[in-house]
Amino acid sequence: MVLNNVKQVLKSIEERDFKHIYFVACGGSLALMTPSKYLVDLYAKKLTADAFNSNEFIYLNPAALGKDSAVILCSQEGKTPETVAAAKFAKEKGATVITLSMVDYSELGNEGEFAVKYGYYETADAIDTSYGAMYLLTAGIIEAQENCPLFNKMVTNLTKITPIINKAKEDFVDKALDFAESCKNSKVLYTLASGSDFSQAYVFSNCYMMEMQWINAIAIHAGEFFHGPFEILEKDSSVVLLMGKDNTRFLEERALKFCSKYVEKIFVIDMNEVDFKDIDEDFVGVMAPLVINNVCRLYSKTIAKVRNHSLDIRRYMHIVEY
Amino acid sequence: MVLNNVKQVLKSIEERDFKHIYFVACGGSLALMTPSKYLVDLYAKKLTADAFNSNEFIYLNPAALGKDSAVILCSQEGKTPETVAAAKFAKEKGATVITLSMVDYSELGNEGEFAVKYGYYETADAIDTSYGAMYLLTAGIIEAQENCPLFNKMVTNLTKITPIINKAKEDFVDKALDFAESCKNSKVLYTLASGSDFSQAYVFSNCYMMEMQWINAIAIHAGEFFHGPFEILEKDSSVVLLMGKDNTRFLEERALKFCSKYVEKIFVIDMNEVDFKDIDEDFVGVMAPLVINNVCRLYSKTIAKVRNHSLDIRRYMHIVEY
Repeated sequence: MVLNNVKQVLKSIEERDFKHIYFVACGGSLALMTPSKYLVDLYAKKLTADAFNSNEFIYLNPAALGKDSAVILCSQEGKTPETVAAAKFAKEKGATVITLSMVDYSELGNEGEFAVKYGYYETADAIDTSYGAMYLLTAGIIEAQENCPLFNKMVTNLTKITPIINKAKEDFVDKALDFAESCKNSKVLYTLASGSDFSQAYVFSNCYMMEMQWINAIAIHAGEFFHGPFEILEKDSSVVLLMGKDNTRFLEERALKFCSKYVEKIFVIDMNEVDFKDIDEDFVGVMAPLVINNVCRLYSKTIAKVRNHSLDIRRYMHIVEY
Repeated sequence: MVLNNVKQVLKSIEERDFKHIYFVACGGSLALMTPSKYLVDLYAKKLTADAFNSNEFIYLNPAALGKDSAVILCSQEGKTPETVAAAKFAKEKGATVITLSMVDYSELGNEGEFAVKYGYYETADAIDTSYGAMYLLTAGIIEAQENCPLFNKMVTNLTKITPIINKAKEDFVDKALDFAESCKNSKVLYTLASGSDFSQAYVFSNCYMMEMQWINAIAIHAGEFFHGPFEILEKDSSVVLLMGKDNTRFLEERALKFCSKYVEKIFVIDMNEVDFKDIDEDFVGVMAPLVINNVCRLYSKTIAKVRNHSLDIRRYMHIVEY
């Protein structure tokens, strides 16, 4: 589904020249775009990229935004007001505007030049999810702009990752329960990660814990950790450490080494425990955030059950005016 | 001091073409660079920029890093190992490497092609601090690359900002004391800001509170706030809201409106209370982070006194191995 949709978009824009990609969204939808920003950093020799919160993007009004920009925006239901406004704004600036959402027709889709519809994360194959759609689009744009063969490799690996994700969701059940039981009364969690995995520390802290569980959670970059935040840690602090497989894994390993010495409650979600069998060796790091995301969601569901606090309870979002 | 030093550097590189600037440092030194990244976003039509933690920069190994990159690195004492290594790495990649530190000769300075020495933040005029040096360099590079007259304007405004900073440090004394007394036992603080001010939410939370006071503090982007984190807030939560004067102020105002309804303990550091008299109207937003930084430092000193917890106490940093 997503693959054909993305291929059509890529075909339509293959003659255009882009200098910069803006990834624009809010909250969880912004977090799911940052691995694609990482992909640009990792593979693109000319193209550069920024990831912006939708309102920040509009009000900042980047001077470089224009005809040679690709702006990719995402909103699950396609109606996040700031993201809809950002799409309109980007189009007025002459940028190529591509929108992603889970629905057929949306306000967001109406504002863009191209719309990609992705599937529901609980049921769709990885290639059909928001992460899959983002990676396909970004890989395709990099390939077209840089003559760097990335798209087919992305398709192949995304096609093979779903069973690996599903197995990880089974294999981490006990660890998820241990986390949930140990942290159900924690006053604050520290979530560490680096590189493309940092997106998952962000979504775990800001969405799964603070929004959906009303548990304080601080996403700390594993490299920045040693330049301030680590001073807060005590023996009984609760640390969730995400360990992926990208180039920056060393930073996460260094954080683990430190935390193992000074903290008792460390919950490591380590991609070294996952068998990435059919995935191309040099692409395991790119695929890992999709697995981490699903394992983090398992952790959040498990703690929600243990605390008897549904992930769907809100007190402000879509309830009060803001 | 800094001005002549920066002018020499700019003179030496004026014939070089840059496509991208990498701002690279750790912790507080990284935070002080992000307003310069904002400056690039705001004024540069061709140049783009990234801000990276030093180790993230090295291990990620951006594909675009090379001869047409300017890499600016900062470390107070010029010996932060990751930043020294990042300078070496960038130079090997053929980039133009400019280093900033507070000392005459440093390991960091040795690795770069150009070194800028800045003054101590407590005693130097604003133009001679790290913030001043960063802004001068960045404005100069933007001007040279884009024919956009920015450097003299930056010099003029930096020259005029010191008395405004000093007055703010006096005017916010009572508010700092109110913050310190009210939050001395807070379990967690939420620090909100957007745009260039977000750098100060970052340094306030990660350095002034977590590192130097062992108080949990979460830096939340004021636009992202409404897409997850705001659900954590209760009536007795403690919120520090930074309100600057840049293009994104609306995001901070929106956060204030929400917090005023649902939270009792809001501590607003509002640049509308500061008289920016001689500053060019369209440059007040650029100058505001320097004022906010000094007011935030006043807040941290005040809470340190009230809690009888010196800002200099560490349990891990430079004490244990990591």
